Amino acid sequence: MTQPSPAMVRAAQAAGARMADRNTSFIFNEWYVGAFADEVGRSLLRRTLLGRDVIFYRTQEGRAVALDNRCIHRSFPLSEGLLDGDTVVCGYHGFRYAPDGELIQVPSQERCPKGLGVRNYPVIERGPLLWIWLGDEAADPALLPPHDWLVDPDWVCSKGYFHLQGNYVSLHENLLDLTHLSYLHAKSFGTPDYAAAKFDAEIGEGRFALLRDVVPTTLPPVWAKPTGMEGYPQAARIVRSEFLAPSLHTVAVRFYDNALPEAGRPEFRIRTAHIPTPETHGTTHYFIVHGRDFAQDQDWVTQHMHDGLFTAFQEDVDGMQHLERMLEKTDEDFYEISVASDRASIEMRRYLKSRADAEAQARVPAEEKPVAPPVSLAGVA
Amino acid sequence: MTQPSPAMVRAAQAAGARMADRNTSFIFNEWYVGAFADEVGRSLLRRTLLGRDVIFYRTQEGRAVALDNRCIHRSFPLSEGLLDGDTVVCGYHGFRYAPDGELIQVPSQERCPKGLGVRNYPVIERGPLLWIWLGDEAADPALLPPHDWLVDPDWVCSKGYFHLQGNYVSLHENLLDLTHLSYLHAKSFGTPDYAAAKFDAEIGEGRFALLRDVVPTTLPPVWAKPTGMEGYPQAARIVRSEFLAPSLHTVAVRFYDNALPEAGRPEFRIRTAHIPTPETHGTTHYFIVHGRDFAQDQDWVTQHMHDGLFTAFQEDVDGMQHLERMLEKTDEDFYEISVASDRASIEMRRYLKSRADAEAQARVPAEEKPVAPPVSLAGVA
Amino acid sequence: MTQPSPAMVRAAQAAGARMADRNTSFIFNEWYVGAFADEVGRSLLRRTLLGRDVIFYRTQEGRAVALDNRCIHRSFPLSEGLLDGDTVVCGYHGFRYAPDGELIQVPSQERCPKGLGVRNYPVIERGPLLWIWLGDEAADPALLPPHDWLVDPDWVCSKGYFHLQGNYVSLHENLLDLTHLSYLHAKSFGTPDYAAAKFDAEIGEGRFALLRDVVPTTLPPVWAKPTGMEGYPQAARIVRSEFLAPSLHTVAVRFYDNALPEAGRPEFRIRTAHIPTPETHGTTHYFIVHGRDFAQDQDWVTQHMHDGLFTAFQEDVDGMQHLERMLEKTDEDFYEISVASDRASIEMRRYLKSRADAEAQARVPAEEKPVAPPVSLAGVA
Repeated sequence: MTQPSPAMVRAAQAAGARMADRNTSFIFNEWYVGAFADEVGRSLLRRTLLGRDVIFYRTQEGRAVALDNRCIHRSFPLSEGLLDGDTVVCGYHGFRYAPDGELIQVPSQERCPKGLGVRNYPVIERGPLLWIWLGDEAADPALLPPHDWLVDPDWVCSKGYFHLQGNYVSLHENLLDLTHLSYLHAKSFGTPDYAAAKFDAEIGEGRFALLRDVVPTTLPPVWAKPTGMEGYPQAARIVRSEFLAPSLHTVAVRFYDNALPEAGRPEFRIRTAHIPTPETHGTTHYFIVHGRDFAQDQDWVTQHMHDGLFTAFQEDVDGMQHLERMLEKTDEDFYEISVASDRASIEMRRYLKSRADAEAQARVPAEEKPVAPPVSLAGVA
Repeated sequence: MTQPSPAMVRAAQAAGARMADRNTSFIFNEWYVGAFADEVGRSLLRRTLLGRDVIFYRTQEGRAVALDNRCIHRSFPLSEGLLDGDTVVCGYHGFRYAPDGELIQVPSQERCPKGLGVRNYPVIERGPLLWIWLGDEAADPALLPPHDWLVDPDWVCSKGYFHLQGNYVSLHENLLDLTHLSYLHAKSFGTPDYAAAKFDAEIGEGRFALLRDVVPTTLPPVWAKPTGMEGYPQAARIVRSEFLAPSLHTVAVRFYDNALPEAGRPEFRIRTAHIPTPETHGTTHYFIVHGRDFAQDQDWVTQHMHDGLFTAFQEDVDGMQHLERMLEKTDEDFYEISVASDRASIEMRRYLKSRADAEAQARVPAEEKPVAPPVSLAGVA
Repeated sequence: MTQPSPAMVRAAQAAGARMADRNTSFIFNEWYVGAFADEVGRSLLRRTLLGRDVIFYRTQEGRAVALDNRCIHRSFPLSEGLLDGDTVVCGYHGFRYAPDGELIQVPSQERCPKGLGVRNYPVIERGPLLWIWLGDEAADPALLPPHDWLVDPDWVCSKGYFHLQGNYVSLHENLLDLTHLSYLHAKSFGTPDYAAAKFDAEIGEGRFALLRDVVPTTLPPVWAKPTGMEGYPQAARIVRSEFLAPSLHTVAVRFYDNALPEAGRPEFRIRTAHIPTPETHGTTHYFIVHGRDFAQDQDWVTQHMHDGLFTAFQEDVDGMQHLERMLEKTDEDFYEISVASDRASIEMRRYLKSRADAEAQARVPAEEKPVAPPVSLAGVA
């Protein structure tokens, strides 16, 4: 019998119950990237984020605004209406909202009811990213996950986006164990020696990293050409893959010639910000920004690395979709077996699970609906 | 904070609970339009009405027939069978049904079991419409909603149909507050002054009307050209939008030159029968007949108004689809805020809700299934 | 009133509750055809059987293998990985499985955990068919349903496959009452006299047959041409349609000239193996093998019969799809009325139901998940 024993299955299931998966509730009290900054302008951009239907736009002064997309009158999507100056006009009966969400005009009557409006979501624009806070707790800019290098002129970046048919937990897990480079990315930027290279896990407070030194190795073309080490078997590839927040994962890699003495040898550094924002439990907005701090003025390097990387990331996207199709049909017999290289991702999934559970508990319990008198019509003179 | 207070949300939810919405059960004891009369002929027309799978056809003498579409033997859709003379033959094992639904032949045996058949639904053909009664109560022709003008030769009509990806309650509500002409129909037959024009509601016994006088105004092209008031700012547009039954809504409009003395000034009248028949909770058969009682012999007027109107109605159809996508994902936090112009539609939705609830209560409670002896095979010799 | 009385409806429902239908759980302890033998080779073939996600392949020696498709590590579908020699390598992190399902390599660590693996399903290859055992009971080759003629060189066969958008119970029932040849197959291999021809049922232990003698008759082109009886009204068509197992139904037909004396007249025999393997409750792998034991060396006969038959089987496939659309929306008011020719199929459906219920009862009840200590990581050194 090659299958795990019932005891092992039960233990695996008990362990799994403590880890986040596709069905775990979202963590709202976090900054998420809602859009690339350059996606938002003088029209209404509709996007579903953590299950919420949101619109983005910019005021005439250029300030980004995020509002709930549902008109409070008859639920028409505001995204089908108009941006008029700094205000949003519903396309059904003309209800008008200010950038802070306040209802400021009801065209069918002179008096506009007070104290009504749609939810306004705090946003922060920083470099190429527009962050949004969807949680019930106060939005604290200090809670932005670290990404200073993205606004550092030393780092030359390119970006891309995938609409991922998979959940964000699986994507984080994918990033925390790069063993998969030898298999899922065998034809792009993986090499056969990657899977068996030595690794180490760093478990921090809400941060989880996997470190992997692939030395000596031969770099794949995406890295070999810009670093001048094509076909050279003495290269070093030093990787740090780190979960920084539910909304941000950064992979930082150093390359150098391992045959040279440590002192003075040139190092080439690249970084990739992997930015998953859940759309639904089965789909994810997958924003990516990739950068380097060398050869900054050579456009061909930017293009070469961008093309090579996004070919590889498409393999992740395809793989995550295959995985999602498996995960969405799990039943009570489901279990997964972990191995040593999963340590960081297990701790990460436990963290997500505990955060999600704590948030769910903190939500005010839905009270029994009181038997209310017939509602008086708001704003009736 | 621009969002409604918790107390206001609770009150809105309590009010909403008394109003029909997309999830409210259908009202069966009503006449509905099942098809345009000219859709039904000497073949089997399949249509889902209020969730019921129905076939229509005409006998050799031309009488319209409506039957349940499911063969009582093995559930094959009769619509895939044949119309043979006045009878319907199932396309699977040849069970034959008379126009009254009676099973009259089982080809695999000589004796046909008695007292079996599919449900026959009463129909009434009147003018362009074929009405059907799907309810459990007796079908009373006196309960047909009023539509005499549709069989009055003074009224010249054209007709059209939309398969609406939305529920019929939203469509009725759309029709009972024409504020939306200034927004949803800004590019077709709405004008900017429409939304703020004075209005009045009429609340009757199962009838609900909104009256709106847009005076003075400039008529949109669809009305301006046939009435000879193109670009003329002193036109009057007097609108009565009335819910007559769950299956019929009529919008009647008078146009005249407001600069002329009331006595003797010409009036132009148009009417539109909006005829929603629920297909499912999220889709509706939307039949429309539009007519006028002036310039009856001028075909270009018919064509001009038809084209203009159906362009506008397509905007409603698109809008209702956007709305349905919002409504189908509502959760327990959902609420809507009403304003003064919603009074007629609120009363209409309460009426639909009370009718639906009363019907649901009247249905015989599903008895516990008795432990029966093995069924004897019907018709075994 | 043409509809059945409430008492008759209740009796029909009580009878229906004892019969298998599309919602009845699958019967796992049976041999099913998973694939035609020639579909399985040196790549990974993915197929869903009875709701299970399975891969097939052949070892380098040519032995067929069937494994569960889910990697026990992170649920990636093995079908997206590689066949490497006789082993399967997961396309995500490279977990390697032997043909018996045993996990034999975890590339990210030196030591491979023991006692783990994916489920291996017993298979038997026989003639054109590859049988698979998905049940929990021991796989006994003696339980293969009888199909010796398929490996008998006297029988010349052709084969085909349909992905049926319907359930397998309906397909079996279709095959057990060929009354439908006069209707569903009126344009292909049915004749008008088929429905009223005399028939008899044979009820055995898990075997159910319907016998039908259509004598005299005129054969349809598919049979008339190969037997030399085109347009001849004195032909005999003697049919035995038999349910042999949930996974196999055989239709055997003899044709002869009824005007000739019994002694010495030539007989032409054809057989069709109808092989349904449930994919889901609403879809079925429908394998078909058709053969004859005459004119074995005449290829045009093979082609002629194959073309004629598969045209007719497409009618079944279309009909079953129509039926499935009806059955999938049944509610508590649903019932079906049986007649004499349904006797074999009723007994067959009762048999399927009792088998399914017995299996469901035999399954170990899901225990309450124990509160286990954190799982230790498998294979951590």
